[in-house]
Amino acid sequence: MKFLSFLDQGRSRLGLLKDDGKVVDLSALLAARAGHGLPSVPADVGELIELGGAALDAIEACLEGADASAAAGRDLAELRVTAPLRMRKNLFCVGRNYRDHIIEGNLARGRPADQFPTAIEFFTKPPTAIIGHGERVPRYASLTDSLDYEVELAIVIGRRGRDIARADALDHVFGYTIVNDITARDLQQRHGQWFKGKGLDATCPMGPVVVHRSAIADANDLDISLTVNGALRQSDNTSSMIFDVRTIIEQLSAGMTLEPGDVIATGTPKGVGFAMTPPACLRAGDVVSATVQHIGTLTNIVSE
Amino acid sequence: MKFLSFLDQGRSRLGLLKDDGKVVDLSALLAARAGHGLPSVPADVGELIELGGAALDAIEACLEGADASAAAGRDLAELRVTAPLRMRKNLFCVGRNYRDHIIEGNLARGRPADQFPTAIEFFTKPPTAIIGHGERVPRYASLTDSLDYEVELAIVIGRRGRDIARADALDHVFGYTIVNDITARDLQQRHGQWFKGKGLDATCPMGPVVVHRSAIADANDLDISLTVNGALRQSDNTSSMIFDVRTIIEQLSAGMTLEPGDVIATGTPKGVGFAMTPPACLRAGDVVSATVQHIGTLTNIVSE
Repeated sequence: MKFLSFLDQGRSRLGLLKDDGKVVDLSALLAARAGHGLPSVPADVGELIELGGAALDAIEACLEGADASAAAGRDLAELRVTAPLRMRKNLFCVGRNYRDHIIEGNLARGRPADQFPTAIEFFTKPPTAIIGHGERVPRYASLTDSLDYEVELAIVIGRRGRDIARADALDHVFGYTIVNDITARDLQQRHGQWFKGKGLDATCPMGPVVVHRSAIADANDLDISLTVNGALRQSDNTSSMIFDVRTIIEQLSAGMTLEPGDVIATGTPKGVGFAMTPPACLRAGDVVSATVQHIGTLTNIVSE
Repeated sequence: MKFLSFLDQGRSRLGLLKDDGKVVDLSALLAARAGHGLPSVPADVGELIELGGAALDAIEACLEGADASAAAGRDLAELRVTAPLRMRKNLFCVGRNYRDHIIEGNLARGRPADQFPTAIEFFTKPPTAIIGHGERVPRYASLTDSLDYEVELAIVIGRRGRDIARADALDHVFGYTIVNDITARDLQQRHGQWFKGKGLDATCPMGPVVVHRSAIADANDLDISLTVNGALRQSDNTSSMIFDVRTIIEQLSAGMTLEPGDVIATGTPKGVGFAMTPPACLRAGDVVSATVQHIGTLTNIVSE
């Protein structure tokens, strides 16, 4: 199942994206069904996750019992999609996790090409950076001359845990989404630690959907790509990660509790703008589309 | 005024720490006063900040009108103090901001002594790390052999803003508190970016109070110190910061919105354990007390 969040007359709603491209308003469907058994009706994907497995069962029962018109849904293009979750802590991010991207970064920064991390480089992006599919990314021309894109597979945590072993890691996953980790390269470099260059408002498009993990056979075998104005810039497969999804959860949760609704971006493949010859960073008007197989495409426009 | 949050029969309460060391239950005082004019009664310092300036006026009116027994308060030592705020995003932190601490760090890591940052190194600690005065910090012996302390002055934001100019920076401050930025030095080093070494559960004691900015004449002229088992380890003055409070707010808010309840730790002075000869990091049973002038002392014990 593919879940998303959207606004209807100013109110947040939980939606289900069907294979035919239509979106069913699950908030309305659940609210209309007496005895759904949930303590509350979820208004977005974050609230769905909070409700745990019972909510998925209730949704399935609802869909089976729904009449044809309620289950038909509306066109995705007509809806104002938001980010799937309202984050209550920063987004966790993994740096330098694809071999070829590390090499291109090392060369662009004048370092030895084969300098690879031996432990995961974790950093964060603040909740104020999160935006949805279709929302605008400011160009920040007065702050940076090198605003760049990074398509990433993102893990959405479903179950609380600490010191999670590799073998158990996927039990803590609710599903997967797409993140575009927009980065001001000059700020990233100038401020030493990466937070400043990664933390600008509205520089973290997320979505459009969260796919339940049951629909992803292997999160480390998904094609991943990004286009700018239709031109392919990044193209790889999540099997190229140095640290896979299980290892990321194991290392991040060592001594640190992961909570339902936490999101972990897993790093980007090669092809980022600043490492091109000559560098080709984002300009106002650029249309950036980030795609991950079996999840979808996250598109945002860079504004002035 | 010095505000704190504490638990009374499992419920969070907003308290006022008076000069005589007694704590007045402001939540009870406000709730008992008809016509306090606030949309809700604040249950901790975070909720007080959300209510804005009107809440401070209401509290002053309440205290003036209170009878002697209600305003007498209870002994601080009898209360279960919590962290002042429940964080809804990560704590913002400033790295390497005191000249002598940078030199000791450079020498301990075999770098040239006079390598200073030219822009602020921002990183974060997650909400799961925040604990209150008197709570225990785990030793994490299986994860790290170098758990270290860092006393820091922390800024508590009161008013939303982005691109805040130096001249206006203090208008956005609600007050100040103390943070002990407990750090696993080996993880900090091994994982490249600092988040992993800074992000373990319960490694961010905060409090015990938030002092309103009206009580702090100059946040960059405060004595700051830390003891381990009574022995002085860190001792400096916040005037030694390379980037002062105004500059930190200016650089952090450039392109990134600061929100009421955000907290920014401003860096630590020299004297950290890993830079001592020989290194003297934290051991189970250690009592760590972090003090900032005009704010108070934040004490925590390291547990097994």
